[in-house]
Amino acid sequence: MNTFGTNFRITTFGESHGPAVGVVIDGCPAGLALDASDIQPLLDRRRPGSSDLVSPRDEKDRVEILSGVFEGKTTGTPIALMVRNEKHESKDYEELRTLLRPGHADFTYQQKYGYRDHRGGGRSSGRETLCRVAAGAVAMKILAEKGIIISSRIVSVHGKTDPDAIRAGILGAKAMGESVGGIAEITAQGVPAGLGDPVFGKLDGQIAGAMMGIGAVKGVEIGDGFAVAGRFGSENNDPIRKDGFVTNHAGGILGGISSGQEIVVRIAVKPTPSIARPQETVDIHGNEAEISVKGRHDPCIVPRILPVAESMLALVLADCWLEQAKYRV
Amino acid sequence: MNTFGTNFRITTFGESHGPAVGVVIDGCPAGLALDASDIQPLLDRRRPGSSDLVSPRDEKDRVEILSGVFEGKTTGTPIALMVRNEKHESKDYEELRTLLRPGHADFTYQQKYGYRDHRGGGRSSGRETLCRVAAGAVAMKILAEKGIIISSRIVSVHGKTDPDAIRAGILGAKAMGESVGGIAEITAQGVPAGLGDPVFGKLDGQIAGAMMGIGAVKGVEIGDGFAVAGRFGSENNDPIRKDGFVTNHAGGILGGISSGQEIVVRIAVKPTPSIARPQETVDIHGNEAEISVKGRHDPCIVPRILPVAESMLALVLADCWLEQAKYRV
Amino acid sequence: MNTFGTNFRITTFGESHGPAVGVVIDGCPAGLALDASDIQPLLDRRRPGSSDLVSPRDEKDRVEILSGVFEGKTTGTPIALMVRNEKHESKDYEELRTLLRPGHADFTYQQKYGYRDHRGGGRSSGRETLCRVAAGAVAMKILAEKGIIISSRIVSVHGKTDPDAIRAGILGAKAMGESVGGIAEITAQGVPAGLGDPVFGKLDGQIAGAMMGIGAVKGVEIGDGFAVAGRFGSENNDPIRKDGFVTNHAGGILGGISSGQEIVVRIAVKPTPSIARPQETVDIHGNEAEISVKGRHDPCIVPRILPVAESMLALVLADCWLEQAKYRV
Amino acid sequence: MNTFGTNFRITTFGESHGPAVGVVIDGCPAGLALDASDIQPLLDRRRPGSSDLVSPRDEKDRVEILSGVFEGKTTGTPIALMVRNEKHESKDYEELRTLLRPGHADFTYQQKYGYRDHRGGGRSSGRETLCRVAAGAVAMKILAEKGIIISSRIVSVHGKTDPDAIRAGILGAKAMGESVGGIAEITAQGVPAGLGDPVFGKLDGQIAGAMMGIGAVKGVEIGDGFAVAGRFGSENNDPIRKDGFVTNHAGGILGGISSGQEIVVRIAVKPTPSIARPQETVDIHGNEAEISVKGRHDPCIVPRILPVAESMLALVLADCWLEQAKYRV
Repeated sequence: MNTFGTNFRITTFGESHGPAVGVVIDGCPAGLALDASDIQPLLDRRRPGSSDLVSPRDEKDRVEILSGVFEGKTTGTPIALMVRNEKHESKDYEELRTLLRPGHADFTYQQKYGYRDHRGGGRSSGRETLCRVAAGAVAMKILAEKGIIISSRIVSVHGKTDPDAIRAGILGAKAMGESVGGIAEITAQGVPAGLGDPVFGKLDGQIAGAMMGIGAVKGVEIGDGFAVAGRFGSENNDPIRKDGFVTNHAGGILGGISSGQEIVVRIAVKPTPSIARPQETVDIHGNEAEISVKGRHDPCIVPRILPVAESMLALVLADCWLEQAKYRV
Repeated sequence: MNTFGTNFRITTFGESHGPAVGVVIDGCPAGLALDASDIQPLLDRRRPGSSDLVSPRDEKDRVEILSGVFEGKTTGTPIALMVRNEKHESKDYEELRTLLRPGHADFTYQQKYGYRDHRGGGRSSGRETLCRVAAGAVAMKILAEKGIIISSRIVSVHGKTDPDAIRAGILGAKAMGESVGGIAEITAQGVPAGLGDPVFGKLDGQIAGAMMGIGAVKGVEIGDGFAVAGRFGSENNDPIRKDGFVTNHAGGILGGISSGQEIVVRIAVKPTPSIARPQETVDIHGNEAEISVKGRHDPCIVPRILPVAESMLALVLADCWLEQAKYRV
Repeated sequence: MNTFGTNFRITTFGESHGPAVGVVIDGCPAGLALDASDIQPLLDRRRPGSSDLVSPRDEKDRVEILSGVFEGKTTGTPIALMVRNEKHESKDYEELRTLLRPGHADFTYQQKYGYRDHRGGGRSSGRETLCRVAAGAVAMKILAEKGIIISSRIVSVHGKTDPDAIRAGILGAKAMGESVGGIAEITAQGVPAGLGDPVFGKLDGQIAGAMMGIGAVKGVEIGDGFAVAGRFGSENNDPIRKDGFVTNHAGGILGGISSGQEIVVRIAVKPTPSIARPQETVDIHGNEAEISVKGRHDPCIVPRILPVAESMLALVLADCWLEQAKYRV
Repeated sequence: MNTFGTNFRITTFGESHGPAVGVVIDGCPAGLALDASDIQPLLDRRRPGSSDLVSPRDEKDRVEILSGVFEGKTTGTPIALMVRNEKHESKDYEELRTLLRPGHADFTYQQKYGYRDHRGGGRSSGRETLCRVAAGAVAMKILAEKGIIISSRIVSVHGKTDPDAIRAGILGAKAMGESVGGIAEITAQGVPAGLGDPVFGKLDGQIAGAMMGIGAVKGVEIGDGFAVAGRFGSENNDPIRKDGFVTNHAGGILGGISSGQEIVVRIAVKPTPSIARPQETVDIHGNEAEISVKGRHDPCIVPRILPVAESMLALVLADCWLEQAKYRV
C-alpha cells in the first residue's frame, strides 16, 4: 500500500537506486499557487550532506513538477512530483545481495516477496521519505493559508537534551562506528476545533499511524503520552473556562477530534541500524555471517526525520481539513 | 469514518443510549465455524459489573448474529452482530445536555457537529468498543486456526506493578472520587514473517493507528518503544543467527513487516475522565460551571481496555493475513 | 464488498432467509430530520404483494432505526436500519440445496465460496436490494433539501411501450409460467453543474457501475446511449447558448461531470430467471437434472426495480455532493 | 479521483500539454518479468498517426519505467511509468482559453474548478488514456500468465458493419469536417469461474463503471445487453449441462461473478466532439460565439478506443484476480 490519505491522497514510488523517486498528489484543491520553490526548501532540510551530524552523501534532490500545475496554480488534477536519483555504483552493494542487515527490512522483505532490490534497501530505504516530504510541502502550503503552522524540535538524543551534549554525542557515536537514537516533538498551531472523524478516523489514531509508519519510529505519544499512566483523573483532565482550556495534557485532541489547542506529538526514534561495528547475521540461504555496514550513513537520524515527521502531520491535517468540508455542507 | 480494515472490514454503529449497538464484518472467509458462543466470552471480559475494580453497572450484552452464518458456518457474506442496549433513564443525563465534561469528547463533538447525543457520550461512549470486541472475537477465531494467539496483561496502574498494589490503588482512587491511569501490553504469538505492507500499510503503523484510536489511549510503543531513544545501534539491533533472532528489541516488526518473532505492543491509558470530584467546565453557551460526574464509572479503565486492545490487534492481523494472500497468488 | 460509496457510504447485510437484513449509513451529515416514515414509503414501493403484476408474497418490511438519530435528527454518527425477515419454511427450498437454478447466482456462488445459503438465493436474493432502498430514501431526503429530485418510469416491457399492453404482457407471461424483461429510465432533476470527479470518479462511470450492480440489469445508457453510435458529431454535440444547452443528448454529463441539465439513465432488465417452465440444469455434483422453479415469483421485475434504481442514483449523487464539498473549501 | 482498483491499483497523472503523463501501479505481484517492450506495443496501438482513419498527429509516446522493476522483474513495489509529452505550441490553443467546446468537458471543468488548463483539454484530454493503456499492458501480462486473453473488435461505425463501408464512412466524415460514432466489443477468454465480489463489487458492475468512465462512451452492455429486454425468461436463461452452459446470453457473468464462460462487453462510442463544422457555443463569460474546432482530430475514435477498453477490462480482471486470492486462504 503506497497510498496515504483519503481526501488529500498521496501515492509514492521509487527505490533508492532506481531511476527516480516521486509522488502523485490527488485531491489538492484547484487555485493554489505552487511552484518548485515551495517544495525545494523542505526537501533540502531532509537532504543528506547538510552538516557533519548527518550522512555526508551530497545529493541534489531537485524536484520536478510533472503535472497538475498550470500557469503557476494547481488545477485540481493530480500533481506529480519527481526527483531523479543520481547514479550510484551498484557494485558497492554487491555484498548485500545475499547478506541481511540486522535492524533493517532486509530479512522481512526477503520473506515477504521472496526477492528484493538489495541496493541500499531499495524501496525500504529512507530515500522513500523524500516523496513524503515533497507532498508534505504542498500540504503545508494549504495549511498555512488556513493559519495552521507545523514545527518540530529535537527533544533528546541518546538521553541528552542539551544541544552541545547532543552534538558531542552524535559525533562520538560516529567516531565509534555507532549510531544513537532520540526523541522528537512535532506540533501544529492554529488547528481549528473539529478535525478528525470518529470512530476509526480519529485524529490521534491517524497521527499515530502516520508517525509509526516512518521507518525508525518505535513509539508515539499525543500530549502527555505515557506520563498520563501515573496520574489521577483530576490531574489529567484539562479544565475548561470561558476563554478556553486551562492546560493541554490532551495534546489538542479529545475523543479523536481537535479541540482548537496546539497539537503535540512525540516520537521515539531508534538508532540507525546501519553501523560499522561488526554484527551477527545470516545470508539469504541461512548461513551465519558477520556484517559491518559500509557507506556514509547517518550516526543519528533524528535531525533528518524532523521534516519527514512534520510532513506526515501536515498530510494528516490537510486530509482532515478536506474531510471536514463535508460537515460544512 | 466508522469502518476499519481493508480486507477484513468492520463497520460499527450505535450510541450508548440508543436502541442497539452492532457491527457488520465484511470480508470474513467462508466456511469458518461460528456461533454466538465464540463471541460472548470476549464480550463478557469487556462487560462492566464483573468485579469491584470496574463499573458496577450490570449489563448483559447478549450478542445476536443477524446474517452471514448458515448452518453454523460463515458463508463469505457480511456478518452482522447486534447487542440491544438496556433501557436507561435519559433524565439521569439531563444535566449533560448543556454541560461539557472535561477530558471527554463533549466539547469537540459539539464543535464538530453543532449537535450531540449527550446521554452517556452517545457515539463517543466506551460502549462503542463493544462492537470492536465482537468483531475481534471473530478475527481471533480466524487467527487461532492459523496458530496465532493474542494475549494481554496490565503492566502498571498509577505507577504500581504489583497486583495487590494495583488493586489497592484502584479501590483507593474510587473511594476518593478519583480515577487512575496505567499501561497495558498486548502480544501476538505465532505470527508468520511477511505480514504488513510497505510503505503506508506497515504493520507497526497499522497497529499504532488502531491502538491510538481507542479512547483513553495516549501513547503506543512497539517492542522496546521509547527506550530505544537512549541506545546505541549495536545495543538495539537484533542479531540474526541460523536459528533465528537473538533478541526482540524490535517487537517482531522490521521495515513494517512481521519478522516471525512475537509482536509486542504497549499502550498508555489515561485515567477515566469521569470523576466525582468537582471540575471546572463550561456549558454549550460558554458559561462557566462546576461539574461532578455522577453515575457508576470505572475508577480505572485498564482492565476493561485489555479485550478491546486485543481485538484491535486481532483485527489488524486478520486484515494483514488476507492482504498477504495476494502475495501467494 | 458490501460497502458502496466514498463519502456517503452504505454497508448492507443480510440474506433472504436469515434473521434480518439491514444497512449502516456512514457519512450522513448531522442535523437532518429523519424518522422511519421517511424511509417506509420507498420500501413499500419495492415490496412484493402490492399488485397482481408482481410477486404475491405479502411481506411487511417494517424498518427500524437502530442508531444515528437522536431526538428526530441525525447526529453525524452511523445510521443503522434493520428489517426483520419473516419466518419461512426452509423445507420449501430443500430441492435447491443441490440443484442450481439457471440464470441465477447459484452456480457462481457455489464456485466462488464452495458453499452457499440455498434458501431463496441467500445473499444473492433480490431481497438484499431492500437495504439499498432504505439507504436510498435517506439519500433522497438529503438531495431533496438541495432541490434534486429523482424519478423513474418504465420505458418498455417485452418490447411493448403502451401501459395496457405492458400489463397484458406481464399477466400473459405469468399465465405461461414465463417471465419478461424490459427497459426503465431513471432521471435526476435539479442537479447542479460540477458533480463527478475525473478521471476514475466520473459521474457517468459511477452511475453505470451502480446500475449494472443491480441484479438483472444487463445494459446501461447515459443520455442517448447506444443511439449515438449512428450519429455525426454535429448531430450529437449539444450546442450551448447564453441561456444554456439547446439539447441534452449527453444526458446531463460532460467529461464525467454534471452539466446542470437533467441526468438521464436507462437500464435493460432481463426477464426474471425464476420460471415455472422446466429448464435444463445440473446439481452441485455435476449431474444433469430438470428444474421448474416453484414459489411466487415476479413475472416481470421491472416495476419493482424502479425504486432500487432510483436509490442507486440517489446514493451516487449524495456521495458526489459530499465529495464536491471539498472543492468549496 | 485518479486512482482505479482496490488490489491492483493504478494512479494516473498528467495533462495533454504538461511536461509528462504517467501512472503508478500499486499491488502488482513480485517476480513478474517486465520491461518497456511489454508495454510499448499496446501504447502504439493507441497512438495517433498510425493510419489515415485516425488523427495524423505523430507522437512517439516512448514509455520509461521509473521504479518497481529490478533486474528485469517486478519487486512488489510500485511501478511508475512515464511518457514525456512533446512540445506543442500553446498559442494554437489561445482561442480555447475562453471558448468552451460543445460536447467536451470544457464547460463542466470550468464550473467545477473555476479554472482549467485549456490546452487540448488538459486533464480531460484523451491523452490521459495513454496511462490506462500502459497499466493495462502490465495487467494483461499478469492475466496472460493465468491463461486469460483480452481482445476487441469494431462492431459498427455510424451504423455500418462492413469493414470497407466503415472505412469509407470515416473518410467521408473526415472530408465533411464531421465525425462519426460506433460500437465496439471487448471480450475476455479463459476467465475462471469465481471472479467478482457481491454485492457492490460485482464483476459486471465494475466493468460497466470502468467502461463508462472512458470519455466518449455512452452505453455499456454485458452479454446480450439491451436485447434481453424483449425476451422471455426461457429464452434468456442459459441452460446448464454436464459439460457446461449451452448458451452465453449472460456474457459470462451470473450474480456478478464470472461463470467460466467468455466475458462479453459492448460499448457505444459517441462521435468525436471536435469537429471543423461551426457550432454554437459560449465563452467563459457567457457570451455567445461560433466555434470551429481546428487541429488534427480523429474523425472516429472507435479504432483508438479499442486498446483503452481492453486495458480497462484487464485492470478490472487483474484486480478481481488478486481479490479472489483471499478466498483461497
